[in-house]
Amino acid sequence: MDITSIGGIIFAVAMILVGQRLEGGHVGSILQLTAAMIVFGGTIGAVMVAFPKKDFIHGIKLVKLAFTEKNRDLVGIAKSLVEYASVARRDGVLALEGKLGEVKDPFMRRALQFVVDGVDANVTRDTLEGAIDAEMEEDSAAAKVWESAGGFAPTVGILGAVLGLIHVMENLNDPSKLGGGIATAFVATVYGVGAANLLFLPFAAKIKRKVVLEKERKTLIAEGVLSIQEGINPRVLEEKLKAYTGDEGHAEKKAA
Amino acid sequence: MDITSIGGIIFAVAMILVGQRLEGGHVGSILQLTAAMIVFGGTIGAVMVAFPKKDFIHGIKLVKLAFTEKNRDLVGIAKSLVEYASVARRDGVLALEGKLGEVKDPFMRRALQFVVDGVDANVTRDTLEGAIDAEMEEDSAAAKVWESAGGFAPTVGILGAVLGLIHVMENLNDPSKLGGGIATAFVATVYGVGAANLLFLPFAAKIKRKVVLEKERKTLIAEGVLSIQEGINPRVLEEKLKAYTGDEGHAEKKAA
Amino acid sequence: MDITSIGGIIFAVAMILVGQRLEGGHVGSILQLTAAMIVFGGTIGAVMVAFPKKDFIHGIKLVKLAFTEKNRDLVGIAKSLVEYASVARRDGVLALEGKLGEVKDPFMRRALQFVVDGVDANVTRDTLEGAIDAEMEEDSAAAKVWESAGGFAPTVGILGAVLGLIHVMENLNDPSKLGGGIATAFVATVYGVGAANLLFLPFAAKIKRKVVLEKERKTLIAEGVLSIQEGINPRVLEEKLKAYTGDEGHAEKKAA
Amino acid sequence: MDITSIGGIIFAVAMILVGQRLEGGHVGSILQLTAAMIVFGGTIGAVMVAFPKKDFIHGIKLVKLAFTEKNRDLVGIAKSLVEYASVARRDGVLALEGKLGEVKDPFMRRALQFVVDGVDANVTRDTLEGAIDAEMEEDSAAAKVWESAGGFAPTVGILGAVLGLIHVMENLNDPSKLGGGIATAFVATVYGVGAANLLFLPFAAKIKRKVVLEKERKTLIAEGVLSIQEGINPRVLEEKLKAYTGDEGHAEKKAA
Amino acid sequence: MDITSIGGIIFAVAMILVGQRLEGGHVGSILQLTAAMIVFGGTIGAVMVAFPKKDFIHGIKLVKLAFTEKNRDLVGIAKSLVEYASVARRDGVLALEGKLGEVKDPFMRRALQFVVDGVDANVTRDTLEGAIDAEMEEDSAAAKVWESAGGFAPTVGILGAVLGLIHVMENLNDPSKLGGGIATAFVATVYGVGAANLLFLPFAAKIKRKVVLEKERKTLIAEGVLSIQEGINPRVLEEKLKAYTGDEGHAEKKAA
Repeated sequence: MDITSIGGIIFAVAMILVGQRLEGGHVGSILQLTAAMIVFGGTIGAVMVAFPKKDFIHGIKLVKLAFTEKNRDLVGIAKSLVEYASVARRDGVLALEGKLGEVKDPFMRRALQFVVDGVDANVTRDTLEGAIDAEMEEDSAAAKVWESAGGFAPTVGILGAVLGLIHVMENLNDPSKLGGGIATAFVATVYGVGAANLLFLPFAAKIKRKVVLEKERKTLIAEGVLSIQEGINPRVLEEKLKAYTGDEGHAEKKAA
Repeated sequence: MDITSIGGIIFAVAMILVGQRLEGGHVGSILQLTAAMIVFGGTIGAVMVAFPKKDFIHGIKLVKLAFTEKNRDLVGIAKSLVEYASVARRDGVLALEGKLGEVKDPFMRRALQFVVDGVDANVTRDTLEGAIDAEMEEDSAAAKVWESAGGFAPTVGILGAVLGLIHVMENLNDPSKLGGGIATAFVATVYGVGAANLLFLPFAAKIKRKVVLEKERKTLIAEGVLSIQEGINPRVLEEKLKAYTGDEGHAEKKAA
Repeated sequence: MDITSIGGIIFAVAMILVGQRLEGGHVGSILQLTAAMIVFGGTIGAVMVAFPKKDFIHGIKLVKLAFTEKNRDLVGIAKSLVEYASVARRDGVLALEGKLGEVKDPFMRRALQFVVDGVDANVTRDTLEGAIDAEMEEDSAAAKVWESAGGFAPTVGILGAVLGLIHVMENLNDPSKLGGGIATAFVATVYGVGAANLLFLPFAAKIKRKVVLEKERKTLIAEGVLSIQEGINPRVLEEKLKAYTGDEGHAEKKAA
Repeated sequence: MDITSIGGIIFAVAMILVGQRLEGGHVGSILQLTAAMIVFGGTIGAVMVAFPKKDFIHGIKLVKLAFTEKNRDLVGIAKSLVEYASVARRDGVLALEGKLGEVKDPFMRRALQFVVDGVDANVTRDTLEGAIDAEMEEDSAAAKVWESAGGFAPTVGILGAVLGLIHVMENLNDPSKLGGGIATAFVATVYGVGAANLLFLPFAAKIKRKVVLEKERKTLIAEGVLSIQEGINPRVLEEKLKAYTGDEGHAEKKAA
Repeated sequence: MDITSIGGIIFAVAMILVGQRLEGGHVGSILQLTAAMIVFGGTIGAVMVAFPKKDFIHGIKLVKLAFTEKNRDLVGIAKSLVEYASVARRDGVLALEGKLGEVKDPFMRRALQFVVDGVDANVTRDTLEGAIDAEMEEDSAAAKVWESAGGFAPTVGILGAVLGLIHVMENLNDPSKLGGGIATAFVATVYGVGAANLLFLPFAAKIKRKVVLEKERKTLIAEGVLSIQEGINPRVLEEKLKAYTGDEGHAEKKAA
């Protein structure tokens, strides 16, 4: 579970609602089905037009990235890779077959399978890097679904507000309804600006960042497995992987 | 037919109109010929000034990309390419001539024709890649027509609204007409913001994405045909094309 | 004459004025010398400060690019180049001297003169490419003059509107003048937004595009002449130039 | 202590408050707990959603960069490096061990330790450059936390203002409270725009600049130490390091 | 003296003030100390926070670039370089020492000094190019001070306006003061938008352009002096430098 995503949404909404309550407003006045229909209906429609079906669906699904926390544990991965390198050095790459069963990460398992199968090193590299790049590209395109929703929502919100104001203006004769009408119209702005700034744009930012972090994790695995295939010395591999796990930078900071 | 484009527009417009109806407004109050003249006339004029005639017309035509769905079927293309590679390997490239009749895709047919004609490999590569790049560049320039329309429409909408407000302000003496006048003025904003966010900008986004997808499809064909010309082993070609069809990334996901 | 530029401006202005007329407004209410002074004076001043004198003057002059249509005729140029290549192959490069008189395009004539004069190939290439790049860079810098005017005009328009509103607010005591005053203030916004979106920004876009097209045209000539200097086979040259004239891409489309 | 950061904030806030006071306003009217809750609560929540926990915390901590002044003293560093190069040349790199104790900068100490330990030159280079890049990337990601806060704050401020206006509009019946209500609503805008423009965006700019300056400083150290490892002549090193310390450019200016 | 900078500011301000006067306003109503304090105090403070002290001061000083006109005279510089090349060819580089006294440009003098001193060609190149790049980078960073001021000023202006409106709203009971209060509040917007669009952003644009032009001038000198050091034939140098002085492009235009 991604604590900052869930905590951030709860914190933001709570602070805003409590703040509004303390000023004397009540939640009811910003709960309005028609404004929600206009803002979210219009935004969803615009995003649907803007993306091919495949990207749209992938983007919707990818929101789970914003709410789940994947244990990256780069140090643990590096440790495993060094261990596999030792096994491969001592007993040959075929000995890694026995290890495959205990590997939980599917990308790691797939990469090691290439080594065990004796696939050509260049093919292994092309395949692994191709898979990483393809996933990265696909997920980045999907993150744009949320970015795009964050761009459309506030303007659709303004559209809703102007529609409401038009309705108000046509009924100026009854001033007693003026205030309420304007208030209702403004709710569309609240929905558009709020959804964009508290949900859609932050989702896009977090998804994009996690896609990059996942790419780094897979690159670490790919580099490690390719080195194992080349028969690298486990100690040299350990040093090499430090550049990916960020151990070095931190060691220095602690010393400072 | 591109379902998300058509469905998205219908969904967005329906939700907005129903929402407005539920609030007590009626569609009639946002149907206004003069506002449409100002907003769409001004936007079309601005886009015409901004683009050479050729780009402008190409851009208008390209909107069909946003509404039609081309069956990309990369896997099928790859399968055909592997089959042609087998034929070429077994019976020589001239044997591909018999296959030309059943090739529907014009780019694929043209590329294979080069092989059958025994055109020099470098010339084939330059010609195919040149054609892909030229089409890509031309289509991207055309996609900008819609992006540009999406940029001009809201500001022209504001222009229309301000023109309307000027008219209202000059007739402040008759307060009974005030509300209706302002309402009319606001309709121009609705048209400008609505057209940009529900149509023009989403069109631009979808066209750009489809242009990229089409480039990927043609690159797959070009790479395949060039490999056939070099006399590639069909099985090696099959492996090689997987990087383009995205088969690999998906296989892993299913395994996960 | 560039039809889309002239037609676009006429179309946009006509639609907006007719639309405003149909709504009951009259053109007179948006004709206002003082607003024009503020908006255009302020914008011109800001652009003058933003650019060195040379760039500013070059930018002003370059607006003719937006209104004139240069016959690019890439196919005709390619045909001439192939013809010159034939002459050079058959009778030697000196025979091209007789052709120089009938060459109308100054860049083509200058390039051929290098060949006739027997200038070193590297010097020819450096000089022609240097001239193309220098012109491209200079013209792009000038196109920014219009882009910059399109950025300043709306904000100066708002400045004018606020100045007008200040004047209105100071005379609130006489409500009968309120509406007219606000209307007058809004005209500055109309000028700023209108000039930026119907003139300045579209001018910048069209100039930039034409600068790119002109660069492509000159690059075609340079490549052709350089190949002639190297004694290329006219038929090979014909094939080579197709990549620049875009013939190939179109041939395929027609076949589709 | 970073004088421009602290002085800038004090100066800006003082000028604004004194200006407001001179106009007849009083500070009390812009001190409002509920507006602060809405704006800062909403902004903090949005930023939390937008960043992984690690980046978020690192970003918060990094604000100290905006308030502290690190003595860069590139000239002093270059002088030390030249001195170490002399020692290494005269007495061998092992003689540098005696110098390690007096080196205060942890990065310099760590780099020299590599030399003393006789680590392979390539490993030293990869490790030092990797550490610099990793820190740079991490800190840049963190600077985005403030940039992002500067983007969310004004829109959340508008959200707060609209929420306040809704409340006002619902109570139009009591005109005596109208002004006060609107004033209260506007305070949210003041907080959002003020915090973004006087704090968050300037913080982001200063942090980013300092991250670049720190990278330059570490690159100077890394280049110097790597040259020492290669046994560079101290006088040549002195010349070489001038490109990093910017001595040369200034010498010329003084001469001008 | 930079005529377009000074003339542009005078023209813009004059047109705006005369326009405002013709509409019946008077300059006095937009002269307001408190608004100036808020807008300029807030903007200066924000820029101070955003930049390190060194960059801030350098940026302030660099405004002189926007008002002074440096005689670039690339043709004259090229002529001198060709002359020095002749001297060096005929009498050896040492003969250039006699010329040093008459060289006014400090960068040219410094570069020639390297040649006279017999400094290694690579060192000369690295030093000159390093000095050009360092100055370019430093000055670009400084130009951002003005760009940043142009970004902060309008939002701080809005801040000032909102603060003024809050004050107005709290005193709605006295309608006679309403108009004047709003007018006063709007002056802050005028200051913010005006300063950004008539001064800060144009300054940034002109400074950036002049920094590029100065880089081109110094690159011309550096290339010329380096060629002299290599003992280039003066006539070849003359041809080579034409690419920098832009002579060629113009020659063609005149011929057209």
